[in-house]
Amino acid sequence: MKLATIVAFDNFTDIDVFLAWDLLNRVKINNKDFEVKIVGTKDKHKSVCGIEIETHGKIKECNNADLVFFASGPETRKLYKDLDYLNQFNLNPEKQIICSMCSGALILGALGILNGITATTYPTAFEELKALGIEVIKDYHIVTHKNIGTAAGCLAAVDLLGWAIEKVYDKNISQDMIKYVLPVGTKITENLGFLNPPHRQATKR
Amino acid sequence: MKLATIVAFDNFTDIDVFLAWDLLNRVKINNKDFEVKIVGTKDKHKSVCGIEIETHGKIKECNNADLVFFASGPETRKLYKDLDYLNQFNLNPEKQIICSMCSGALILGALGILNGITATTYPTAFEELKALGIEVIKDYHIVTHKNIGTAAGCLAAVDLLGWAIEKVYDKNISQDMIKYVLPVGTKITENLGFLNPPHRQATKR
Repeated sequence: MKLATIVAFDNFTDIDVFLAWDLLNRVKINNKDFEVKIVGTKDKHKSVCGIEIETHGKIKECNNADLVFFASGPETRKLYKDLDYLNQFNLNPEKQIICSMCSGALILGALGILNGITATTYPTAFEELKALGIEVIKDYHIVTHKNIGTAAGCLAAVDLLGWAIEKVYDKNISQDMIKYVLPVGTKITENLGFLNPPHRQATKR
Repeated sequence: MKLATIVAFDNFTDIDVFLAWDLLNRVKINNKDFEVKIVGTKDKHKSVCGIEIETHGKIKECNNADLVFFASGPETRKLYKDLDYLNQFNLNPEKQIICSMCSGALILGALGILNGITATTYPTAFEELKALGIEVIKDYHIVTHKNIGTAAGCLAAVDLLGWAIEKVYDKNISQDMIKYVLPVGTKITENLGFLNPPHRQATKR
């Protein structure tokens, strides 16, 4: 089995958790060895817009996952300074695909995952990520280094997860995941980058 | 107050309800007169990928809403033939903005909302929508006629709701809603159509 965990918390950004949840569940349709769990510190977490969901497990499950995806939300500003929270993670970017949306990068930064590489985050979190000693790329919506990816702007999750699933499986399965959510009449124009912004992927340092 | 209702049902497509929910809640930030409710036939509905949510009201609330958005999901194939369900709606496209994602168009079609106009839907529902006597536009991701809009392909919801909020308020508020979810580094390149597919809006007949 391959396991993907979506890390949620109180006041998570709705679309960050639910877009990842929807996309990753599409991978399951043709890949019965794939499992997706929303994990957190509680049995239930409520989104910033007020949707309460049951989690499928605790954050420690990330330590055994093939793919770990950190959502964003105002709570990240507390969590990345919370040692009790951080100490529950024992992630290994040599063996796991690890990625974050927007301010979720602060948690990756605090965990040391981004040490020595570049990253992106939502503009409102640029300074905090920099303060962790991370070189922030401000005009890319997705920045990847080997197994580590960061993305900025909710809809960039499509490209981030496209990249991640290509790493976990292959390009065909990644594109299968994305093609069903694309507006009718649009195409995946190149490798990933369905949104086709000026810079879609960077590997610096 | 202005009310937007998102119509959910059992086995709703996750992203259809949650993307609309996230986007429309962003309108509330600067427009305190705006209210968003997920409505259904039950107190709780579970998504096709297994997320159970509490609804905020029943489908009859659509009859007094300024904006009515129908999600999609396999259940639409039953609902559009269910007279008890359909008879609870008393929508008025002269006074309300009425729109649908993907197979949600089948419900609009069955309600007679699409009579005499063109519409789009997800390719797997083309034939059923045609069978209702509706002329289906197959290569547009969004088709609008006055206050009625249909869209196809989950992410087309961004353009559909952009169009809808421009109708309910104005272009500034619509673009404000969209800009925060765009991948960092991308721009709204024209009026709506952030995804910029070959045809982004049609008004035929």
